[in-house]
Amino acid sequence: MLTAKLPAPEADMLAFANLLANRAREVILPMFRQRIDIDNKLTSGFDPVTEADRAAERALRELIADRFPEHGVDGEEYGAPTQEAEWTWVLDPIDGTRAFISGLPTWGVLIGLCQGGRPVLGVIDQPYVGERWRGWPGGADFQRDGNCPLAISTRPCGALEAATLCTTDPTLFEGADLEGFEALRARVRLTRYGLDCYAYAMLAGGTVDLVVEAGLKRHDVAALIPVIRGAGGAVSDWFGADPSDGGRLLAAGDRAILTAAEKQLQLRSM
Amino acid sequence: MLTAKLPAPEADMLAFANLLANRAREVILPMFRQRIDIDNKLTSGFDPVTEADRAAERALRELIADRFPEHGVDGEEYGAPTQEAEWTWVLDPIDGTRAFISGLPTWGVLIGLCQGGRPVLGVIDQPYVGERWRGWPGGADFQRDGNCPLAISTRPCGALEAATLCTTDPTLFEGADLEGFEALRARVRLTRYGLDCYAYAMLAGGTVDLVVEAGLKRHDVAALIPVIRGAGGAVSDWFGADPSDGGRLLAAGDRAILTAAEKQLQLRSM
Repeated sequence: MLTAKLPAPEADMLAFANLLANRAREVILPMFRQRIDIDNKLTSGFDPVTEADRAAERALRELIADRFPEHGVDGEEYGAPTQEAEWTWVLDPIDGTRAFISGLPTWGVLIGLCQGGRPVLGVIDQPYVGERWRGWPGGADFQRDGNCPLAISTRPCGALEAATLCTTDPTLFEGADLEGFEALRARVRLTRYGLDCYAYAMLAGGTVDLVVEAGLKRHDVAALIPVIRGAGGAVSDWFGADPSDGGRLLAAGDRAILTAAEKQLQLRSM
Repeated sequence: MLTAKLPAPEADMLAFANLLANRAREVILPMFRQRIDIDNKLTSGFDPVTEADRAAERALRELIADRFPEHGVDGEEYGAPTQEAEWTWVLDPIDGTRAFISGLPTWGVLIGLCQGGRPVLGVIDQPYVGERWRGWPGGADFQRDGNCPLAISTRPCGALEAATLCTTDPTLFEGADLEGFEALRARVRLTRYGLDCYAYAMLAGGTVDLVVEAGLKRHDVAALIPVIRGAGGAVSDWFGADPSDGGRLLAAGDRAILTAAEKQLQLRSM
């Protein structure tokens, strides 16, 4: 067992996170690639939400309330508790709703667990492909279709010029952030777009090197951070602060590349 | 059988195309998400090719030479015949090598069959997810993991403002093409990036509405065109010419949207 060194409470909670991810699959998959209603959260622009997002979050909240009634839940669709509990489950039932409604397989279910506001356990689940990445203090694993989990690790990367960079949408950056991103993009070898949480899963599995985003919320990042750190990667915001609550996120498989990318982004953003 | 109305020679060739796609899966999958060598086809820029691309094309060429020695083969990695046969198999062993080397599941194996230079049969295969889309004159289907194929069709779309648009990389457009693309992007509801052939599969399956690209080669389009047309969609180049040899491709699930998108693209490109 890769998770053998985890203390009993965390091991128990990680096992429970698996059950949550299984339940989310049951709720969401019947609605994938079906003609379901799409609501727009914005009056100007397009931020879609579907019954799949809402029903999955409700289902996970029910399971958590039953098993850990003393824990808090902060979910994208139904909000955060007014007072922070010691343990808080941070849920994004469908990260990448735009990909989901387009039929693409690069969205994911994000289940994070925070202790005292810091992310400690994370699950990224892709129900359609049947993929699951999990992270905890000191380790990370990957499994497909319920097969035996395998340990994963990020890959080394010698220089920005050799790096593969991911971001969700280049048009989401503005002003100095856009300049910083463009300067970084011009240096790396390859850039991939449109991936949401799937990019961080690839980083943890060692097939890409950098992910750069801005404007993230806590429910976008809480599950990702333990997976990346557990796989040996590094996460910061663009200016090196604690990224636990979102904002501008920079993740790298190789710590030296994180530093180089930070310098590049800061050069243009200050 | 959805393909019951196909004449015997074409039905036979479509069944053979399935065998080709199965063989490509066998060759490529063991190299997916592995640390394999990546060569760069360009001296300036980055156009990756791997042994997975080359080995798959060699394997398919062997099968074709054995079964249909009189047919031509035009493949991305090993080139085109000097003289065009009546029937030519047009192969892109990995469309989306950039996605492939990044571990993403949105690349595909493209197998097209042209008669007299016109694409008549097409297969888009995604080996890792286990998905296969096929098209022929009058129909198209989808199957996963070898399950029974289901008929697919594109979806209606009332207006550009309601459309989901896909393209592989917005930085691949230049000059007037970029202006045309940006004008179109500004009108649609949602844009997704980085998908290569997977975008056309989504169009055929009715989860996106438009795909716009430029600079395509024959091996990029020969397999896609029969799938889109078989599913009820329309394909043209941006100026309405025959897209059989690539160039600027515009594909739509709804013919009215194709016309509207053409007008938008032409406005800025002339």
